[in-house]
Amino acid sequence: MSLVVQKYGGSSLADAESIKRVARRIVETRKAGNDVCVVVSAMGDTTDELLDLAQEVSPLPPAREMDMLLTAGERISMALVAMAIANLGHTARSFTGSQAGVITDEVHGKARIIDVTPGRITSALSDGHIVIVAGFQGVSQDTKEITTLGRGGSDTTAVALAAALKADVCEIYSDVDGVFTADPRIVPTARKVDRISTEEMLELAASGAKILLHRCVEYARRYDMPIHVRSSFSYSEGTWVIPNLYEGNEMEAPIIAGVAHDRSEAKITVVGVPDRPGKAAEIFQAVSDAAVNIDMIVQNVSATATGLTDISFTLPKSDGQTGVQALKKIQEQVGFAQLQYDDQIGKLSLVGAGMRSHPGVSATLFKALADAGVNIEMISTSEIRISVVTRVDVLDDAVRAVHTAFGLDSADGEAVVYGGTGR
Amino acid sequence: MSLVVQKYGGSSLADAESIKRVARRIVETRKAGNDVCVVVSAMGDTTDELLDLAQEVSPLPPAREMDMLLTAGERISMALVAMAIANLGHTARSFTGSQAGVITDEVHGKARIIDVTPGRITSALSDGHIVIVAGFQGVSQDTKEITTLGRGGSDTTAVALAAALKADVCEIYSDVDGVFTADPRIVPTARKVDRISTEEMLELAASGAKILLHRCVEYARRYDMPIHVRSSFSYSEGTWVIPNLYEGNEMEAPIIAGVAHDRSEAKITVVGVPDRPGKAAEIFQAVSDAAVNIDMIVQNVSATATGLTDISFTLPKSDGQTGVQALKKIQEQVGFAQLQYDDQIGKLSLVGAGMRSHPGVSATLFKALADAGVNIEMISTSEIRISVVTRVDVLDDAVRAVHTAFGLDSADGEAVVYGGTGR
Repeated sequence: MSLVVQKYGGSSLADAESIKRVARRIVETRKAGNDVCVVVSAMGDTTDELLDLAQEVSPLPPAREMDMLLTAGERISMALVAMAIANLGHTARSFTGSQAGVITDEVHGKARIIDVTPGRITSALSDGHIVIVAGFQGVSQDTKEITTLGRGGSDTTAVALAAALKADVCEIYSDVDGVFTADPRIVPTARKVDRISTEEMLELAASGAKILLHRCVEYARRYDMPIHVRSSFSYSEGTWVIPNLYEGNEMEAPIIAGVAHDRSEAKITVVGVPDRPGKAAEIFQAVSDAAVNIDMIVQNVSATATGLTDISFTLPKSDGQTGVQALKKIQEQVGFAQLQYDDQIGKLSLVGAGMRSHPGVSATLFKALADAGVNIEMISTSEIRISVVTRVDVLDDAVRAVHTAFGLDSADGEAVVYGGTGR
Repeated sequence: MSLVVQKYGGSSLADAESIKRVARRIVETRKAGNDVCVVVSAMGDTTDELLDLAQEVSPLPPAREMDMLLTAGERISMALVAMAIANLGHTARSFTGSQAGVITDEVHGKARIIDVTPGRITSALSDGHIVIVAGFQGVSQDTKEITTLGRGGSDTTAVALAAALKADVCEIYSDVDGVFTADPRIVPTARKVDRISTEEMLELAASGAKILLHRCVEYARRYDMPIHVRSSFSYSEGTWVIPNLYEGNEMEAPIIAGVAHDRSEAKITVVGVPDRPGKAAEIFQAVSDAAVNIDMIVQNVSATATGLTDISFTLPKSDGQTGVQALKKIQEQVGFAQLQYDDQIGKLSLVGAGMRSHPGVSATLFKALADAGVNIEMISTSEIRISVVTRVDVLDDAVRAVHTAFGLDSADGEAVVYGGTGR
C-alpha cells in the first residue's frame, strides 16, 4: 500500500460543489489502494474576507492575532472536506497544523517549519481514516503559539508532511495542468513538461515561475521527495518534479527545461562610485542591513580618466524605497554622485540541466534577443540558468522569441534547433 | 485589583463596528483598574453560515468535524476583538478553548466541562495583557479532540473560567438590559430585576426564561460565582444573580421574582391505563429509555367503575414523535387504550424565594387566572416555583394577568397586592 500526500489549493476549494468534487477525487485515490493524507488551503476568498475584516478593526493588526484569525480559514475548509468524504461513505479525520505536529519557529506571518511530529496523523492513517490537514499553519516550539507559514505555506506543509510520513509522492493540485516551458498566457505554444529535476524547478521558481514556490521545492530537495504538480480539474498526468533526475545520465537532460519571466523587480544604479576597494562592500552592507534581498549585480568597467564607476543591482519592487533610503543615508560616506531607480525592467531566465554539458546556449539566447530587437541590460548565470534584464515592455516579445529559438514551441515539436559555438 | 470576566454574545459582535465598540468597553474596564478576561461567541451570523456550508456538503456531517468547523467562528471573533483592543493601545492575547484549558468530555456537539486549567490565561493576565477566550469550545481530556459545548456554551465557558480564575464577577453581556419580571415583548410593564438569587434564576431558566441557560446558572451555583447580566448597548446596571442571596434574611426575599413562560413543550396523554401497580413505571421507563426528558406528570384519579386511569405528561416538542413511538411499542404490554398528543399547550411559571415563607401565592395565582378566563390543565410546584399548563392561545393573557395580580407592573410600582389565606 502506498502513502499519497495530496494538497489542494483555494481555487480547487472555491465552494461546496468544488469541495465535493475534491472529496470524490480523494476517495478515488483511497479506493485505488492508497493511504491518503490531504493538505488543504483556505477556501477561495476566505483569506481575503478575513483580511478585510482585520483591516476594518485595525490598520496595523498584531501579527500573533493575524495568525489566529487567518488559521480559521483552513479549519473551515478541512472540516468541510472531511464531511464531504464522510458523505461518500469513507471516514475522514481533520487536524489543525498544531494537531498534525507542524512545529515552527516563532515568526508570526512567515514562520519556518523546524520539525514535523505527525504522531496523530500516523495513528489516524493506521486506523484506516483518510486524513485532512490544515496547510499554511503550525505551532511554535516553545511558546505553543499558532503561526502561519506565509506565501505558499500550504505547499510547504504538504512537502514537509510527505517527508515526515515517508510518503511515496506528494501531489500538488491547482487549476493548471503542470509546469510549462513558459507561461501559456504569454506563449500560447508553451508545452507541459512531463518531468523536471528538483534543481531545475528551484531555478525556475527563483526566476519568477509561480507554480511552486522556491521554499517548497527547497524542502523537496532536502528530503528527496518527488512532487507531482497537477490539475484538480482533469485526470491527466501533470509534471513530476524529481530529485536528482539526471544523476548518472546527465547527457539525457534537456538543454532547456523552461523559460521563466519576472516583472516584480526594480533596478537601482549607484552612479559615480569612487573606484576604490571597499566601496562596493559599503554599498551592499547598507542594503543588506536594511533587510533588502538583492538579485543581480553589475559593475561597469571603471572610466580610468575619472576614477569613478557605476554599480547596478536588482531587488524586489516592494523593497525599492527601503533600498533607496538605505543608500541615501550613506551617500556622503561612500562619496557616490547620485542614485537612479528604475522599476520598468523585466527579467527573462532560461533554465535547463543540460546547459552543463551543452555549449552555445548563451550565444543562441543573445542572437534570438537581438533578432527580436531586444536590448540586454544585465546578465547573470548559474550552472543551469542564464538570466537577462530587459525593458519591461519588450519582455513578452523576448520570452516568445527565446521560446521559439530553443525549439520549445509545441506546434513544430522539433528538437532544439540552435547550433551555437560557445557559451 | 479585581479580576473581571466578561462574556459578549454574537449580537454584540455583529460586525467590525460592533467589535470596535466592544473593544472600547473592554478597555474601559481595564482602565478602571481591573484585570480583564473576555469570553466571546462567534460573530452574528457566522455560525449559521458555517451550518449552511456543512449542509451543502453533507446532510449528516460527522459530529467531530462539525465541532472542528464551528469552532472557527469564535477563533475569528476573538482574533478581531484582540486586534481592536491593540488598536486602542492596549495589549491583548486571544486563546482558543483548548489553549485556555477548557477540558471537556468527548461528547461532540454538547460536551460538558470537566475541568478548567487556565495556566496560560493566568500568566497572560499577570504579564499585563487583556485576555480573550473563545467561548463554546474545549478539548477532550484523553483524546485531545476539539469539542463544542452546545447551546449557551459561551455563557458556561465564562462562568467556568470565572470560577477557575477566582474572578470577582462574571459579566454576561447581551442585547437586553437584564432579567425582567416577565418577557417585555409580552408584558410591556415588566420591570428589570436588580438582584435575584441563583436559585431563583435556576428555576426561571428551567421554566423558559431565555436570558441565561440552566447549565450556566447551575455552574454559577456550584462555584458560588456572582453573575452580572447586562446590555452591551448601555452602561446602566443590569441584573445581579447572586448565590445564597437571602441566606440569613429569608424574610426579605421578594415573594415573586418573575413570571416565566414556555411554548416549547407538548403533552402526551396515555388514555385508559389499567390502574395497577407498576403500569406508570412501565410507561416512564419506556420514555426514559428513548432519552426523552419529561417535565410535568399528572395522573387522574382512577374511575373505580372501570379500573382505568389516564396519565398525562409534558415533554419538549422536539422529543414529541420519539416519545409517541416509544409508547406505541409498549401499548399491548401495558394494555392502555390510546395515546393523545397535544402540542397546543403553554406553561406559565411563577418563581420567587419568598414563596417559602408567604402563604396564599397559589390562591392568588388561581384567582388571577380564573378572572382572566384561563383554564388550568396541569399544575406542578417546587419550593420556590408554581407552574401551570394552559392552552397556548391564552398563554400571553395569562402571563399579563398574573404579572398584574402580583403587583409586578412597573406603572403602579405597588407592593404585592394579593392577600390569600393559604397556598
